[in-house]
Amino acid sequence: MLTAAYTGDRTITIAETEPQAPGPAQVRIRVAYVGLCGTDLHILHGSMDARVETPLVFGHEMSGTIDAIGEGVDGWAVGQPVTVMPLAWDGTCPACLAGNEHICQNLDFIGIDSPGALQAFWNVPADVLVALPDGVALDAAALVEPVAVAVHDVRRAEIHGGERAVVIGGGPIGVLIATVARAFGAQVAVIELDANRRAQIEGLGFETIDPREVDQVAWVEQWTGGAGADVVFEVSGAAAAVLGATALAKVRGTLVVVAIHPTPREIDLQRVFWRELRILGARVYQRTDFERAVELVADGTIPSDLLITKIVPLAETRAAFDDLEAGRAMKVLVDVQAGQPGTDGVADAAASVAVDAQGVGV
Amino acid sequence: MLTAAYTGDRTITIAETEPQAPGPAQVRIRVAYVGLCGTDLHILHGSMDARVETPLVFGHEMSGTIDAIGEGVDGWAVGQPVTVMPLAWDGTCPACLAGNEHICQNLDFIGIDSPGALQAFWNVPADVLVALPDGVALDAAALVEPVAVAVHDVRRAEIHGGERAVVIGGGPIGVLIATVARAFGAQVAVIELDANRRAQIEGLGFETIDPREVDQVAWVEQWTGGAGADVVFEVSGAAAAVLGATALAKVRGTLVVVAIHPTPREIDLQRVFWRELRILGARVYQRTDFERAVELVADGTIPSDLLITKIVPLAETRAAFDDLEAGRAMKVLVDVQAGQPGTDGVADAAASVAVDAQGVGV
Repeated sequence: MLTAAYTGDRTITIAETEPQAPGPAQVRIRVAYVGLCGTDLHILHGSMDARVETPLVFGHEMSGTIDAIGEGVDGWAVGQPVTVMPLAWDGTCPACLAGNEHICQNLDFIGIDSPGALQAFWNVPADVLVALPDGVALDAAALVEPVAVAVHDVRRAEIHGGERAVVIGGGPIGVLIATVARAFGAQVAVIELDANRRAQIEGLGFETIDPREVDQVAWVEQWTGGAGADVVFEVSGAAAAVLGATALAKVRGTLVVVAIHPTPREIDLQRVFWRELRILGARVYQRTDFERAVELVADGTIPSDLLITKIVPLAETRAAFDDLEAGRAMKVLVDVQAGQPGTDGVADAAASVAVDAQGVGV
Repeated sequence: MLTAAYTGDRTITIAETEPQAPGPAQVRIRVAYVGLCGTDLHILHGSMDARVETPLVFGHEMSGTIDAIGEGVDGWAVGQPVTVMPLAWDGTCPACLAGNEHICQNLDFIGIDSPGALQAFWNVPADVLVALPDGVALDAAALVEPVAVAVHDVRRAEIHGGERAVVIGGGPIGVLIATVARAFGAQVAVIELDANRRAQIEGLGFETIDPREVDQVAWVEQWTGGAGADVVFEVSGAAAAVLGATALAKVRGTLVVVAIHPTPREIDLQRVFWRELRILGARVYQRTDFERAVELVADGTIPSDLLITKIVPLAETRAAFDDLEAGRAMKVLVDVQAGQPGTDGVADAAASVAVDAQGVGV
């Protein structure tokens, strides 16, 4: 089978290896689609070289079907469609003991800290499997992982029906957060610099703000009857966005920090104090987020057709990153079975749009 | 009667005026003691000139007895000991309508935005009165307002019994937060640079950390069995303290921003994200905080003898601020009746200790 691995120095190496039988407590997944995300791009750029061991078969947004079942695994059937919640925790650290296993102090993020999904057959511990409904489109199902990020962010914000949320940054995660927040009953506006993205986001039925054309504080004030937004999601990763975000929130409003900020950022603590704001970090997801994400993908709430702009075969993974990097795609999937030895799968192609190279930290 | 007013240019003017009868819905308080705080010092320094109208009779930490009752006021008796929760809200702004009257978007903070307690007889709306138990020491009762700040901060942090809290900054508010957090069941350590203060805080039974001598992160790690603190209170106002504070908190821990930070501060958002931290602004108090504060003062939980280091007559208010500014006192009270025309009150004096000139924003 073919695998795609990051081998350092901005290089992806396609190699041929033999599939392995699943070990005890494992299942082998026949991988269908793998989504490429900002974190993968960070890995490719070498920004995470201190963390990853090369060669790293990466990829953690995926869908597939169960191909073989290891010893001691119950409750799963060969052929069943699945995705993976790619977290393995130690179960013994203070975070785990307090019930926060998803941000275990020694978390193994599968696809970063251990081998990921860019291989035709992938062995994973059975307890990371998440069932997909029969008949779900496997390309759309590769979006479940980033949708689970968005569900986690929205649940963390404790959004209630009728509230108003502002999303700063209209990349893939920003659009998913907006979509999920709306599904939870919020009205949503998205602040985005890029005109093409704004047009696409408006096409999804959201208000948009171009902060170079409009006074965003005054806009949000008016939109909220003088109160300010109930929740602000910072998804841009930009220092200026963080500094301005607190001015958008209502008294006792919430700012959720979703994007990665590798260096400390200035925050208007006077505003945090004055309005008794709440700033929340939100990282990865919990199983309930994944299960809700599966529902939102399966019932069509997530506009997967609009989000998936390109599907390429495994051998073209490197070129797909170029599209991501150059802003020519919102979400690129790798069709892992296309071009595998002994198969005749072909890749779909779709129009490209602007892309968010901003990673969501894992 | 004598009044003490800020009249601009670092000046306090002592004037003689006639007491006024209380208007409808007002009571007249015979003011006993007024505490001077960091905010008053900011006013004196001119830092709040854009907000205050001079001459401003200031002072908002106080105790006294009811002297006269205006038309339409029920439920209060002449001679009854009282303090004042010095907030007046409009009741119509979005914050008020959402139940957050204490941080009304158009809040009148009595003693800053309207006349305060540094006068022998003070007319206030009856609805700001808070009853004191008969027999309470009126000097200790002048601490109820800053204790209510501490109760609010601790309640905002949702501290549970058995949790571990770190207080950064051991001035009057830091010591009160430590004391209240302990009363709520927490174990508390205080980070403080000044050796005299540390000795005083240790005398109250708290752990202390000198961050120049000890690696505070390692200390807290060890103190919490590798978890990190449940709650960190930032009471120092220092930029470096803010930047370091996030490293002290456990996964899903809380950082409460108590001090004033007049300019934006750098925060380690990567840590906020990685550990899913929660940062909360906390400002002033609600009535329940005041009522709890009265109990804590009355039952001796608050070590008022150790906190009140000096009591001066009204005429010496300006000199008392010099003591505060120079770090020669923890808490200075003004004995408002001492030296009033027709009285023969005298002021107590006590040994001076280091002082926190850091205001708590109101």
